[in-house]
Amino acid sequence: MPEGPEARLHEAMRYAVLGGGKRFRPFLVAGSSALFGVARHAALRVGAAVEMLHAYSLVHDDLPCMDDDDLRRGQPTVHKKFDEATAVLAGDTLLTLAFEILADDDTHADPKVRAELVHGLARASGARGMTGGQMIDIRAQKEDFDEGTIMRLQRMKTGAIIEFCCQAGAILGRASPPLRHALVGYGRDLGLCFQIADDLLDITATAEEMGKRTGKDAAAGKATLVGILGIEGAKRQLELLSRQAGEYLAPFGERAALLQAAADFVIRRRN
Amino acid sequence: MPEGPEARLHEAMRYAVLGGGKRFRPFLVAGSSALFGVARHAALRVGAAVEMLHAYSLVHDDLPCMDDDDLRRGQPTVHKKFDEATAVLAGDTLLTLAFEILADDDTHADPKVRAELVHGLARASGARGMTGGQMIDIRAQKEDFDEGTIMRLQRMKTGAIIEFCCQAGAILGRASPPLRHALVGYGRDLGLCFQIADDLLDITATAEEMGKRTGKDAAAGKATLVGILGIEGAKRQLELLSRQAGEYLAPFGERAALLQAAADFVIRRRN
Repeated sequence: MPEGPEARLHEAMRYAVLGGGKRFRPFLVAGSSALFGVARHAALRVGAAVEMLHAYSLVHDDLPCMDDDDLRRGQPTVHKKFDEATAVLAGDTLLTLAFEILADDDTHADPKVRAELVHGLARASGARGMTGGQMIDIRAQKEDFDEGTIMRLQRMKTGAIIEFCCQAGAILGRASPPLRHALVGYGRDLGLCFQIADDLLDITATAEEMGKRTGKDAAAGKATLVGILGIEGAKRQLELLSRQAGEYLAPFGERAALLQAAADFVIRRRN
Repeated sequence: MPEGPEARLHEAMRYAVLGGGKRFRPFLVAGSSALFGVARHAALRVGAAVEMLHAYSLVHDDLPCMDDDDLRRGQPTVHKKFDEATAVLAGDTLLTLAFEILADDDTHADPKVRAELVHGLARASGARGMTGGQMIDIRAQKEDFDEGTIMRLQRMKTGAIIEFCCQAGAILGRASPPLRHALVGYGRDLGLCFQIADDLLDITATAEEMGKRTGKDAAAGKATLVGILGIEGAKRQLELLSRQAGEYLAPFGERAALLQAAADFVIRRRN
């Protein structure tokens, strides 16, 4: 940790990224890396980069001008613990650091792999991915969107990064296109599962279980997949999609145990 | 431009990055690229990425929780024209897009060059560069820092990106280490010149000339290099540093005309 007046920035970044969380995205990177015998060191570095990117998105999402949340993982949000300016900067810096790590020699010896990781994560988290989805999400609180738009919102906001994590192992392992495409399919279904499960938990779990405010989608009048499909319909969809996701893993046999566990976790998680 | 509800995000990004500005950083990328016969297409893409990164930093800097500015380049700032949430997202997305562009195949055929560009820009704009400097800057408004810390703040906040722009041509052109180091030296001195000139303009120029609020450093009680050196001392330092910067360009002869012009511009600019 650097000393000097900028130490506060590092402190806020550490608070944001080391304060718990499920580490679901790094788990997916580890799982997809396991399919191709990728070095643990490389998978961990990519997992760390993705987790930093995820943490940045939460820090900015929690800001007063966005979701205005005081609580995250049972702790004060970054702008509550520090201040708004520090939260904006800490998020910006985590995003930047994610790309620095991916592009670093130490992540992979092959620069083509590094450039591809940067490109893939940037696409997944930009205007056609996560932040584009967040923009739609903000507007969904005031406007009525149809089912197609809500699906697209979810795929962009949460799905794109999850898809990237499922592909990351294939990029690191320089996998053949068919195997990589199988992981894209797996990641797409898993991402949708994750979102449906999240929407269900927002309705059924307590704030204590979740470590953050619940019921807020309904309170904000937000259109969710569960709102469209109903609770029972959503649960059926979740089962269906997670089975479908699992089928994409068939070519990998037993090496896919971690990714299979990820799909099981998604439909069973309680927070 | 995409249609759909996320079009507002793209609109805000375009507003932030296409609404004028000196394009000083892309000019430096073009100037350093000219030294090594880099393809114009590659230099333009890197210049665009750097300008997007610069625009993101301005959008976030102008937010109410940061500098709280209503005016930028004579126009309403992004959060005034749109809203705060959109400004946060537009900044995030411009930062992300900068890295996407650098990592894209279309920027350079050699992936090592692309990875190095990403790594260099990320380092220059992260905790040990721009955002770290911004953190110190925020604290400098309330605390007294010594000359060394103010110098370090400026080098991090503005200098690091300018240094990167001056090196970008060497990265794109796969220049030898000695030539690259000459550009690092040039960039460091030029960055400091740029900051001193900026501080001087904050005192001597009108808001109309600058297209933004002036005199705000003094009003905020911010320690600047001009505050430390005095106006006359700062002007002398500016002359000295710009001459010193020019000397680094000697090995390049006439091909350095653009970069020489950049140094001249910095000491003569009126906005």
